[in-house]
Amino acid sequence: MKRKIAIGVIGLGKRGIGLLKGVILPREDVEVVAVCDLYEDRRERASALVETATGHRPAAVNNYAELLMMTNIDAVIVTASWTEHLSIAIAAMNAGKYVASEVGGAYSVQECWQLIEAYERTKSPCMLMENCCYGRDELMVLNMVRQGVFGEIVHCSGGYLHDLRNEISGGHVNRHYRLDQYIHRNCENYPTHELGPIAQVLDINRGNRLLSLVSVASKAKGMQEYVQRDNSTNPELAGVDFMQGDIVTTTIKCARGETIVITLDTTLPRYYSRGFTVRGTKGMYTEDNHSIFIDGRHDQDHGDWRRQWGNADTFREQYDHPVWKNYLAEGIKGGHGGMDWLVFNDFFQSVRQGTLPPIDVYDTAAWMSISALSEDSIALGGQPVAIPDFTNGKWISRRAK
Amino acid sequence: MKRKIAIGVIGLGKRGIGLLKGVILPREDVEVVAVCDLYEDRRERASALVETATGHRPAAVNNYAELLMMTNIDAVIVTASWTEHLSIAIAAMNAGKYVASEVGGAYSVQECWQLIEAYERTKSPCMLMENCCYGRDELMVLNMVRQGVFGEIVHCSGGYLHDLRNEISGGHVNRHYRLDQYIHRNCENYPTHELGPIAQVLDINRGNRLLSLVSVASKAKGMQEYVQRDNSTNPELAGVDFMQGDIVTTTIKCARGETIVITLDTTLPRYYSRGFTVRGTKGMYTEDNHSIFIDGRHDQDHGDWRRQWGNADTFREQYDHPVWKNYLAEGIKGGHGGMDWLVFNDFFQSVRQGTLPPIDVYDTAAWMSISALSEDSIALGGQPVAIPDFTNGKWISRRAK
Repeated sequence: MKRKIAIGVIGLGKRGIGLLKGVILPREDVEVVAVCDLYEDRRERASALVETATGHRPAAVNNYAELLMMTNIDAVIVTASWTEHLSIAIAAMNAGKYVASEVGGAYSVQECWQLIEAYERTKSPCMLMENCCYGRDELMVLNMVRQGVFGEIVHCSGGYLHDLRNEISGGHVNRHYRLDQYIHRNCENYPTHELGPIAQVLDINRGNRLLSLVSVASKAKGMQEYVQRDNSTNPELAGVDFMQGDIVTTTIKCARGETIVITLDTTLPRYYSRGFTVRGTKGMYTEDNHSIFIDGRHDQDHGDWRRQWGNADTFREQYDHPVWKNYLAEGIKGGHGGMDWLVFNDFFQSVRQGTLPPIDVYDTAAWMSISALSEDSIALGGQPVAIPDFTNGKWISRRAK
Repeated sequence: MKRKIAIGVIGLGKRGIGLLKGVILPREDVEVVAVCDLYEDRRERASALVETATGHRPAAVNNYAELLMMTNIDAVIVTASWTEHLSIAIAAMNAGKYVASEVGGAYSVQECWQLIEAYERTKSPCMLMENCCYGRDELMVLNMVRQGVFGEIVHCSGGYLHDLRNEISGGHVNRHYRLDQYIHRNCENYPTHELGPIAQVLDINRGNRLLSLVSVASKAKGMQEYVQRDNSTNPELAGVDFMQGDIVTTTIKCARGETIVITLDTTLPRYYSRGFTVRGTKGMYTEDNHSIFIDGRHDQDHGDWRRQWGNADTFREQYDHPVWKNYLAEGIKGGHGGMDWLVFNDFFQSVRQGTLPPIDVYDTAAWMSISALSEDSIALGGQPVAIPDFTNGKWISRRAK
């Protein structure tokens, strides 16, 4: 058997533990050499998990710099808090590690540039672990786009449409950093679901790029009403003002002329969706009723379009993405309906082969910068804000696989 | 029987004829005294229709000023081209008529102010005939909003989502003005579906107002590809550049802090929808899967929310709007699923009773101004643009019925 990939995991909260259980420990080609978290109980829990699964107890440290100094580590997985993703990723690149960075938004454009500069200096690859790029529907639609089924694409939309009120309000109890974000900031704080899949559909950084955005936030009423309704569980939140608007609408213009609408929608009651929508000159895909409309094939009868709901499933046989066909043939593994497994599978494959990951630093910087830029636009009353070209012109000649 | 309301109809294209057939001639309390159009064949057709239905031939004129001079006319219905709606409405108000103006968008903020000034000078009421305000779902949702079912409303969206490629490309043949709009302009050219119903949900001009907007247009590819594909029917359009972006996204901020996203989506293949969505602290309504989600009642199960699709129908018994309950009890009449009948019913009732119409000049100006303002915002690269307070402060004390 090939030598195992030696990894360190930085950040052992819910997500870190979930990844260990779901996609890291089940792999025979990966060895967890070290784990890191500020909290001792989390380190202990993770260490025990690794020991139970493998018989080997990993090193457990509270300072990630210590983990990065370990020369026997090939790659690190960063699942720390949003505020730390990029600085830890940069430190890891400087230490010569392959980096898998969990998703989140950037706080400034400058930290995105620092990531780029770290990569260009060290050539240590960094992949943003945007699992939604591996969703079955997202990949099927991407496959259809590449085959021209929807014609020329002119518009996409999507977002993070997930009622997180319970999770946010429990932040102080479960030590999740999200709560503080919602109290202090007002921006598109979680853009990469569904910007990631849309960026792939639109060849962003590969013949196209994100050019500018405008961002507008609604008032913030969801959290306030929620914690007042249930103040027995969250007495410390009584009277707290939440600055984060309930719905943030960000409209992005691309270099080739497409528009993208990204919505943050996490503090009002709703069903979960990523609202993925792709519009082309020959057809459309809509997640919210899981339908595909092909010009000349699905008629435009005003009253009877409900019969089309759910018809996207009928396109699976022809258009399911090869990645998913293989995956299903092998049997679904890992969390989030397989997306976690697939995104980490691509990461570990890059590490093993020494190749660049499919989602690279330029994507990471461009996608994460939307948070900082939307914060600027909202603060300026919806002012259009330019999105930097983090590739410094390389997007013109870079090509999608 | 009461004296009949004597009306003139200005504009006898498809819409004018449709209204005559569907909602005017069937009424026993309305008499068509005069009809007006630039085209003789249209005047002839309309006159014949009226004569067949009533035994009386109306006056037929090609100059609307002539019609407005007829002192026996109580009210005029303006279904002329978009470019003429407001100037004819203003002339009619100056002539002391009640005015029913068909929907469309304004070309400048100034013509909206002219409408306001004409009203404040003449006190002739003018109603924008936004039939979508009378849609059964729109009214049911409004009824639920007023009863607090969705909690405090923080966000709404909607639009005119209608594949018009065939209609637009046939413009030169069927003498429809839309074609020229799509060749020359780039804006939210048809905002009042669904801004009208949303404005009612959000008490616009009645305790709230539209404050500012940002508007971004995608590239324009739909029409070009459509006419090239089918250039046998539209040889005169070969090589024509269409300036109108396929998808225009306009985000409006309201005085009370709500956001509204309005989408124009008329030149790509799709099913018809008005995309009506209402989001509150206690629930949501979504037209695109016809569902209602009530906090604490519909669970947030990730995988299984499809079973909720279509459940809005289960709320009818409890929340159908009284206007619709009565209408259904009497039997549906008129076009567009009854909406035309209801909007004209309200207009004729105002005329008969000498009262102000439910959609007044302030609403007309505010809603129609979005076209001109979105044109500005798009031209300025998505710049936020202020929406005038056409009520000059009266919105603060005006109240919804």
